[in-house]
Amino acid sequence: MTTPNRPGEFALIERFFKPLSRTTPFVRHGIGDDCAVLSPAADDELVLSVDTLVEGVHFPRHYAPAKLAVRSLAVCVSDLAAAGAHPEAFTLALTAPELNESWLQEFSRVLAAEAERYGVSLVGGDTTRGPLCLSLQVMGSVPRGQALLRNGARPGDLVYVSGELGGARAALDYLESLSPTEAQQSYLQRYHSPLPRLALGQALRGVANAAVDISDGLVADLGHILRSSGVGATIYTDRLPVAMGLRDVAQGVDYALSGGDDYELCFTVPGEYQAHLRALEKTLALPLHCIGEVIDGAGLKCLDAEGVVYETAAGYQHF
Amino acid sequence: MTTPNRPGEFALIERFFKPLSRTTPFVRHGIGDDCAVLSPAADDELVLSVDTLVEGVHFPRHYAPAKLAVRSLAVCVSDLAAAGAHPEAFTLALTAPELNESWLQEFSRVLAAEAERYGVSLVGGDTTRGPLCLSLQVMGSVPRGQALLRNGARPGDLVYVSGELGGARAALDYLESLSPTEAQQSYLQRYHSPLPRLALGQALRGVANAAVDISDGLVADLGHILRSSGVGATIYTDRLPVAMGLRDVAQGVDYALSGGDDYELCFTVPGEYQAHLRALEKTLALPLHCIGEVIDGAGLKCLDAEGVVYETAAGYQHF
Repeated sequence: MTTPNRPGEFALIERFFKPLSRTTPFVRHGIGDDCAVLSPAADDELVLSVDTLVEGVHFPRHYAPAKLAVRSLAVCVSDLAAAGAHPEAFTLALTAPELNESWLQEFSRVLAAEAERYGVSLVGGDTTRGPLCLSLQVMGSVPRGQALLRNGARPGDLVYVSGELGGARAALDYLESLSPTEAQQSYLQRYHSPLPRLALGQALRGVANAAVDISDGLVADLGHILRSSGVGATIYTDRLPVAMGLRDVAQGVDYALSGGDDYELCFTVPGEYQAHLRALEKTLALPLHCIGEVIDGAGLKCLDAEGVVYETAAGYQHF
Repeated sequence: MTTPNRPGEFALIERFFKPLSRTTPFVRHGIGDDCAVLSPAADDELVLSVDTLVEGVHFPRHYAPAKLAVRSLAVCVSDLAAAGAHPEAFTLALTAPELNESWLQEFSRVLAAEAERYGVSLVGGDTTRGPLCLSLQVMGSVPRGQALLRNGARPGDLVYVSGELGGARAALDYLESLSPTEAQQSYLQRYHSPLPRLALGQALRGVANAAVDISDGLVADLGHILRSSGVGATIYTDRLPVAMGLRDVAQGVDYALSGGDDYELCFTVPGEYQAHLRALEKTLALPLHCIGEVIDGAGLKCLDAEGVVYETAAGYQHF
C-alpha cells in the first residue's frame, strides 16, 4: 500500500500546488483540508464552471506542461467571462500516469503565473493516478442577480461576437509545423493561449440579454443561446470577423462558423445599445462585431453575401 | 468534427443529468449554462471539496454503474461531513471511453436517488471522451466561521473516531467473492455504500477542535490533523473500534489503522466534552470511541495493550 521511496500525494501537493493557494477576502481557507472555505461577499453570488481536458482529445499528446497550464486555466476562466463574473478561485483535479517531478514543476510554475494573472487562488484539488486528464473548476463572484446567462435572448436583439474567429481552428492544421509562418504563429497563439474576455463580460452586465463563450464553435455555442432562450437567429457570413489571413482561404468561413477554441464572447443585446458597444470597443481596444439578429422561432439561419443559406458543420461534438 | 448519428454531449446531458439539477434557495441557476449561479445565505460560508475516482484505481474495473454512483457521491459528501457542513450542490466531470446509453441511464438514475437523499442539486459538469474517470466537486454551507478544519487540534484534546474501522479494507479481499458470508457482506456494504457522517459533523461544530473523514486510513488521516495542527498524538490499539469479526483476525488491527474507505470521522475534542459526546452517540445512534489523546510534539505513536509501540503501514498513498 505504501511507496516510501517516492514522495506521496501530500508531499507533492505541498510542494507544487500549495504555493498557489492564497487567502483572500473570498478564500478564507484554501488548500490543505477536507474542504476549502469560501466567503462570498453578502451582495454577491458565486458562479462556477467545470472543464475537463483529456490528453489526445482536448490537447495534443506530449503537450508541453507550460502550454497545458496556460490553456487549461484560460479555457475555464473564459466561462467566468461569459457570465460577467470576477474570477476568484479554482480547484484542480489532476490525473497523471506517474509522478513526474519535472513535469509537475513546470506545470505548477506556469499555472502559478497564470493564476496570479487572473487573480484566482487554488483552493483545492486532487491528484490521482491514471491517463493524463485535468478537471478544473473555476469560481467567480458577480453582483446578486447580474450574472449573464444563455436564456435571456429576445427577438429583435442584435447578435455580437468579439475579436476574431477561426484562428484557433486553423492552428490545428499547423500544430506539428516546425517553421510556421507569421500568420500561422498567430493562429497557434490563439490555440495555445486563449484570452478570456473578462473585461468585456463584466462590461456586458446589465447590457447583454444573453452570452456564451465560443469554445465549441460559433454555430454550436450561439445555438445554446437560441435553445435556452426559445428563439431563432439569422447571421450573415460576410459580417463574420474571420481571422486575418483566413478570409481568402476556402475553409475560412467554415472555421469561423464551426471551429472551436477561439474563446471570444458571443452575446445578444437590444438594439439601443449599439452606440454603447461602439464606445466599449474603444475602451477595451477589442473589436465587437454585429453579425446578425435574434428572431422569433427556432434554429439558426446563416446567409451568405447573396442571401443564400450557407451550409456548415454543426460545431464540435463532444462524443 | 461531427457525429450526427449519435446523440451529442448536450442531448446526453439534457436527458440523463438535467433532471438532477434543481433550483433551491442555494442554487439560483443550475445546469445548462456556461456557469451555475449559487446564492449562499448571507450568514453562511461555502465549503467545497473535489474527489476524483479513476477506474482500476479507486473502483474496480467493470464496476456496476449503480454502485459507482452510490460510492462516488458518498465519498465526496463525506468531506462535507468532516467540515460540519450541510450539503447543497455538486458538479460532475465524467470521462468515459464511449457513449454507453444503458450505462448512463443506470448511473444517472441511481445518482439522482442519492442526490435526493443528501439534498444536493447537480449544478454543472462536463462529459468528455477518455478512460472512465469521475471528478466530483461537492459544495455545502456552514455558518460563518464554524467549518471544522484540520488545524485546530490542541495538546490535551481527546482523539475520537465514529463507528467501526477496517471493514471497507476487509471488503477488498472479497470483492470478487460469489457467495460472501454475512460478515463479508457487511464489509462489502461498507465499501460499496459508505455512510457520510453528516449529522455527526454538524453536531461537532463548536465542539471538535479538528476533524477529518477517514478515507486514506486512520493513521494517514489523523496524521493530517497532527501535521496541520503542529501537534502529536498517542492512540491505543485496544481502544480501536475494529469492525465486527475482524478483531480476532490477524490483520484486523492493521486494517483498522491503515485501511481506508471507511468514511468514519476522526476528530479531537477538549476533555470537557466527554459527557456531551456520550449523549450525542445516543442521539445519533452512532458509537463514538475515544482512542487516544493529542500531545505536544509531532508524530503519531500507536501503543498496543502492553504499552509497546505498534508498527503499522502508513495508510494508502495516492502515488
